[in-house]
Amino acid sequence: MSVPVPYVDIESLIGDEKNCIWQRIRHIVQAEVPSLTRSAEYFFQPGVEGKRVRSSALLLVASALSDGEMGDPSKSALYLKPDLRPYSQYPEEVRRKQQRIAEITEMIHVATLLHDDVLDDAETRRGLNSVNKMFGNKTAILGGDFLLAKASVALAALRNTEVLILMATVIENLVTGEMMQSRSSQDERMSLDYYYRKTFLKTASLIANSCKSAALLGNHSDEVAQLASDYGYHLGMSFQLVDDVLDFVGSSSSLGKPTLSDLKSGIATAPVLFASQEEPQLVDLTLRKFKYEGDVDMASRLVAKTSGVKKTMEVAEMHASKAIKAVDTFPPARGKYAEVCRDALRHLANSVVTRRT
Amino acid sequence: MSVPVPYVDIESLIGDEKNCIWQRIRHIVQAEVPSLTRSAEYFFQPGVEGKRVRSSALLLVASALSDGEMGDPSKSALYLKPDLRPYSQYPEEVRRKQQRIAEITEMIHVATLLHDDVLDDAETRRGLNSVNKMFGNKTAILGGDFLLAKASVALAALRNTEVLILMATVIENLVTGEMMQSRSSQDERMSLDYYYRKTFLKTASLIANSCKSAALLGNHSDEVAQLASDYGYHLGMSFQLVDDVLDFVGSSSSLGKPTLSDLKSGIATAPVLFASQEEPQLVDLTLRKFKYEGDVDMASRLVAKTSGVKKTMEVAEMHASKAIKAVDTFPPARGKYAEVCRDALRHLANSVVTRRT
Repeated sequence: MSVPVPYVDIESLIGDEKNCIWQRIRHIVQAEVPSLTRSAEYFFQPGVEGKRVRSSALLLVASALSDGEMGDPSKSALYLKPDLRPYSQYPEEVRRKQQRIAEITEMIHVATLLHDDVLDDAETRRGLNSVNKMFGNKTAILGGDFLLAKASVALAALRNTEVLILMATVIENLVTGEMMQSRSSQDERMSLDYYYRKTFLKTASLIANSCKSAALLGNHSDEVAQLASDYGYHLGMSFQLVDDVLDFVGSSSSLGKPTLSDLKSGIATAPVLFASQEEPQLVDLTLRKFKYEGDVDMASRLVAKTSGVKKTMEVAEMHASKAIKAVDTFPPARGKYAEVCRDALRHLANSVVTRRT
Repeated sequence: MSVPVPYVDIESLIGDEKNCIWQRIRHIVQAEVPSLTRSAEYFFQPGVEGKRVRSSALLLVASALSDGEMGDPSKSALYLKPDLRPYSQYPEEVRRKQQRIAEITEMIHVATLLHDDVLDDAETRRGLNSVNKMFGNKTAILGGDFLLAKASVALAALRNTEVLILMATVIENLVTGEMMQSRSSQDERMSLDYYYRKTFLKTASLIANSCKSAALLGNHSDEVAQLASDYGYHLGMSFQLVDDVLDFVGSSSSLGKPTLSDLKSGIATAPVLFASQEEPQLVDLTLRKFKYEGDVDMASRLVAKTSGVKKTMEVAEMHASKAIKAVDTFPPARGKYAEVCRDALRHLANSVVTRRT
């Protein structure tokens, strides 16, 4: 990053609140049928929550725009107990509404993971067997549908039409992005524009719109909500670009080699698309979806010879900078705690591009 | 039926309006990705709309409780043009809101058909290849998700929290019912109570709650909305019971034999459950899900020897009578047209139990 950003311990700021939200999620995904509960709660078990970057961004945006309520232990205590009211009940308190959006965001996210893993016939996820492998495709598909239904009821209870439409549109975006990835023409497979659009739909839209929803539920203006959305958008784009780089340069824990899971699924991400400008042989490999013996290794070696990874990281850093710039243009902070949360947002954007896993 | 009900030509009353709704559905399921559009619109093509009993019930309930607006050509003309406004735009007019609920109901219904056909590996539906067979499981799953997302946005646009929660709960019910059907214990598989609960969740809940939503959007009292819900509930139960009977006594068009599709899927419906009280051998066959060679034919023959079909029809007729009774207890009709629509509701309930397909 060109400008150094301060280190902030994000977990000490919002770790307890996230744990409350996860407790609530585990509470509300109880179904009438045990096997449905098992699949719906599977990725909400303690220890397999994933990075929770979506709810981190959302809660920090909410606090960065607030009067510092959550920084005052006498006021925040109420919101650091799990909210176990029925999921269809309207919450009066702004912070509870924002927590609900965090909960809804994570439920939508996990619903798409369940469906994507069926589509990709995935074996593992977050170090566990995938739900489809554990309980079968049927349970995984219905578990995802169940989470979407629960999220819809929880959304309805917020009684805010604009937020409802934003979040329902996110689901449409996620589905469209997944379809773009799996059904592309040859031209589309080689197009960076197509890749960026798909990345917005599959990853950035959910983060952008949940941050925007948190701002709207905090009764901020449309202009401020747009800045919150900008932060989430750029964070999401950056996050996914780095994910795609880590697939090439990261290491799976056991083998110490890149996992190359995208190539193995026939998908060319930014590192390949940039690399193909220098190594035209990658065009053929991409168009045939790396499907012949040796294609994946050859593509990996060719990418390593080029500046594909470097160029992708430059785009990721550009997005992280824009995320930070969105925070810089937030309206004046209402107190010290809001300032700390803004630094946390900057740190989060920075850590997304500097992470190694 | 014990009481004769008048014949009413339902299509002449609401056929044009249903066609408008279908035009709107085909308009709003357009996706950014062509393959998503193809799967989402597949069962909304002219000629493969199915029986449309869900929207018939809903539109007739709406008119039966109205002041007869739709019976007056000078007033109804407006609503008999397809409503092609954006699907996220709030409609002021009561009838347009009710049409939206019809559209949402059918989209939710088709979304579950797409997913169920993947789960059951179904080959055909409504005389066409199933979407999973036509375009693959991935497209069918994402097509279903896309329809649910579109339905959620359309629901949000109605700005009525109670209706939103009702309809989102329906999706939860549909998923729960499907799961109950596919993951049952041995005791559950032999239980009529379990079967009735599953039938409510999978079929009656959607019709009951969409009729109730139509009444609420018509600004009727909770009591009247409950009568609308009762009508839909009993119609739905009756409809499914008769469907389950037709699987035994109906004929597939080519072979002139019952299709026995439930038995082939390992599922015991009401005719089997009643029959097993007279032919205990059916208990063993049910518990092993009719999976050995010859089980399906043997179960079919055993059911034919008993009063299983007759008893199921008696329950179906009881529900149809209760549906008619709900109409009888509607508040006084506001004019002749509302009376005609009440007769149409009675006729619809009757035709559900007298149908042969």
